[in-house]
Amino acid sequence: MAYLNEHYLKLKAGYLFPEIARRVNAFCQANPDAAKRLIRCGIGDVTEPLPPVVIAALHKAVDEMGQRETFRGYGPEQGYDFLRKAIAENDYRAHGLEIADDEIFVSDGSKCDCGNILDILGSRNCIAMMDPVYPVYVDTNVMAGHTGPADESGAYEGLAYLPCTPANGFVPALPRERADIIYLCYPNNPTGAVATRDQLSLWVKYALEKESIILFDAAYEAYITEPAIPHSIYEIPGARNCAIEFRSFSKNGGFTGTRCAFTVVPKTLMASTPDGQRTSLHGLWHRRMSTKFNGVSYPVQRAAESLYTPEGKAQVKALIQHYMGNAQVLRKGAKAAGLNVYGGVNAPYIWVETPAGISSWQAFDRILNEANVVITPGSGFGRNGEGFFRISAFNSRANAEEVARRLQSIKW
Amino acid sequence: MAYLNEHYLKLKAGYLFPEIARRVNAFCQANPDAAKRLIRCGIGDVTEPLPPVVIAALHKAVDEMGQRETFRGYGPEQGYDFLRKAIAENDYRAHGLEIADDEIFVSDGSKCDCGNILDILGSRNCIAMMDPVYPVYVDTNVMAGHTGPADESGAYEGLAYLPCTPANGFVPALPRERADIIYLCYPNNPTGAVATRDQLSLWVKYALEKESIILFDAAYEAYITEPAIPHSIYEIPGARNCAIEFRSFSKNGGFTGTRCAFTVVPKTLMASTPDGQRTSLHGLWHRRMSTKFNGVSYPVQRAAESLYTPEGKAQVKALIQHYMGNAQVLRKGAKAAGLNVYGGVNAPYIWVETPAGISSWQAFDRILNEANVVITPGSGFGRNGEGFFRISAFNSRANAEEVARRLQSIKW
Repeated sequence: MAYLNEHYLKLKAGYLFPEIARRVNAFCQANPDAAKRLIRCGIGDVTEPLPPVVIAALHKAVDEMGQRETFRGYGPEQGYDFLRKAIAENDYRAHGLEIADDEIFVSDGSKCDCGNILDILGSRNCIAMMDPVYPVYVDTNVMAGHTGPADESGAYEGLAYLPCTPANGFVPALPRERADIIYLCYPNNPTGAVATRDQLSLWVKYALEKESIILFDAAYEAYITEPAIPHSIYEIPGARNCAIEFRSFSKNGGFTGTRCAFTVVPKTLMASTPDGQRTSLHGLWHRRMSTKFNGVSYPVQRAAESLYTPEGKAQVKALIQHYMGNAQVLRKGAKAAGLNVYGGVNAPYIWVETPAGISSWQAFDRILNEANVVITPGSGFGRNGEGFFRISAFNSRANAEEVARRLQSIKW
Repeated sequence: MAYLNEHYLKLKAGYLFPEIARRVNAFCQANPDAAKRLIRCGIGDVTEPLPPVVIAALHKAVDEMGQRETFRGYGPEQGYDFLRKAIAENDYRAHGLEIADDEIFVSDGSKCDCGNILDILGSRNCIAMMDPVYPVYVDTNVMAGHTGPADESGAYEGLAYLPCTPANGFVPALPRERADIIYLCYPNNPTGAVATRDQLSLWVKYALEKESIILFDAAYEAYITEPAIPHSIYEIPGARNCAIEFRSFSKNGGFTGTRCAFTVVPKTLMASTPDGQRTSLHGLWHRRMSTKFNGVSYPVQRAAESLYTPEGKAQVKALIQHYMGNAQVLRKGAKAAGLNVYGGVNAPYIWVETPAGISSWQAFDRILNEANVVITPGSGFGRNGEGFFRISAFNSRANAEEVARRLQSIKW
């Protein structure tokens, strides 16, 4: 008799985005006229087309695939050298950070990597994560059997949740309990917060002392506008010995539908066998990717490479400026509506406190009904997301301005 | 202290293809002249360019991604409806097999799916697999902790190996021991064998009786030339209740570097919780893909769709005929060299018995040194692969003819 992975049955059925889709569909069916003016600021998906440099690189690579002389079959599972080098050189070594080409692992998405990284980690780690949190970190740990069941609030037994609140600027305090694996995400999804060099240094110091590993999700690093804020965990001395970094082309190059990302696993990063033998994780991840992955589509890797050309960098900058312009408009609108507003300065997300006595889902329903705008209820990201909602700045400028106006029309 | 997944340490370091690469590199450095005439028939990678219909579909989709009105961000994790429908309609319903669109899960590769499927299966299953075998089935089970250590022959404790030999036509007998999960691959990599309807029916009957699950790898189905041979496990009545099927565009459309595949998980396929409750696996795989995957690149999905147009089908047919023409040439050459030859009739692999007293790796070294041809030693695929080698038909016709000639020049 074949057995299933029973840990999947612990997962909460009402995953955030399907539930949002359900409510939006019901609203649109009941209100066909209002549906026409609906503006979506929910899911964090880019709206602007791929930069011209990417389109040109894709066409060129596609033509190569159509000629026998330049056709490419299986590529290296870890990514082509041309892309690994472009990444290591531009994102790290140009900033004085020592990352070798072969410490870069190209993949088809940061969501995939964040989940798959658990493959190479053991089953007895104590896992700590920010709250509110990107749901994938939690769910993949549940699937891997690292938790007990969820309680009524949706928190899973066995996970250490690190509260992120306005009081701590959405950067958690060091945990009192043991934490072997620590998920940190800056610029943060959903709160839009960033961590300063001093704050990250505390975490790196903690991880080095405890021999813990920081899983650092920097998918939104391109949105940092303040010069003092670190873009990479490796800007903190010692991080090469305690951190894995996830980055993506989804939010800088607009690759959410094109699919390319990368993960940095320094060769100096060690973890323990059950009997205490320290072993480098680099070889394990290399083996994982060689065995369970077959590399990213060749034209897509050429597309990602093009983002590092001077034209590519300029076009990415223009995209970011567009979205961050929206973020300013939305921040201003939400503030003018009398709401407490966080984020949106170094991240494409605005994190808004609901007016007193109104829950996240109540705010969601009222904004949908009264302003015909879709936002994301904060409680979907965890217990400490209750009382907040997230507005995404991924939109046209006209839509951002319209949302800013409509937010002010709601009489809370 | 962070722990690693110690099961990775059981993996044999000398993985097959890296070891081949090492020996080939050493040979080329020592023999620069011979290196120039080297012909590679080792790894099963296609050599011919993408069909014109695919190139056109890619260019069109790339242009869509460059315009705001037609740009696509995140797609459905399970694949776009247009592709799921094209697959279900053409590969299944057109052949009278009841597979619904939403039972098709589009992915970036069959290798990935074959490994990832273990995510949704429990840890107490008895796993049976063919020997010789595609190494990914074995290695992913080792990584998941489903085995003990390997013995000297490379066989892992706790796996049930099903011998595939000339005596049984490389289709294994039903196991005597319990087998909850059974890997079957037809047309087979590496042996090139196929299973008849009667043979597959025996396995489906066994699986239904024992409530086992067959993981059916049909990545090479397009190479079947004999009309009576089943292309899909679902041609066997009852298979919807006991089988998952893996298929790929790598070997029919030449997508090894473009990356697209799919897995069929029928809604009627059940597995048990530890306390014996039967639950559909479809929902678990849907959840797995939603949480740990973000869909295949949009242009690549359009490219895969194009293979189902009349032009696409004709161009795939021409590609297959090219490679199968090579297979005939290679079979003939190996036979003329006095060798016992299997496969190559319904599969792009020729499985050749080494002359008496010569091991697989000895044959590899002699063919490399004396004919300057790279083949794959059968022992790399398992204990029952010893005494065989695999020749891949993925090549130009001129190369296939040259290899056929050179094989006859070796004085065994």
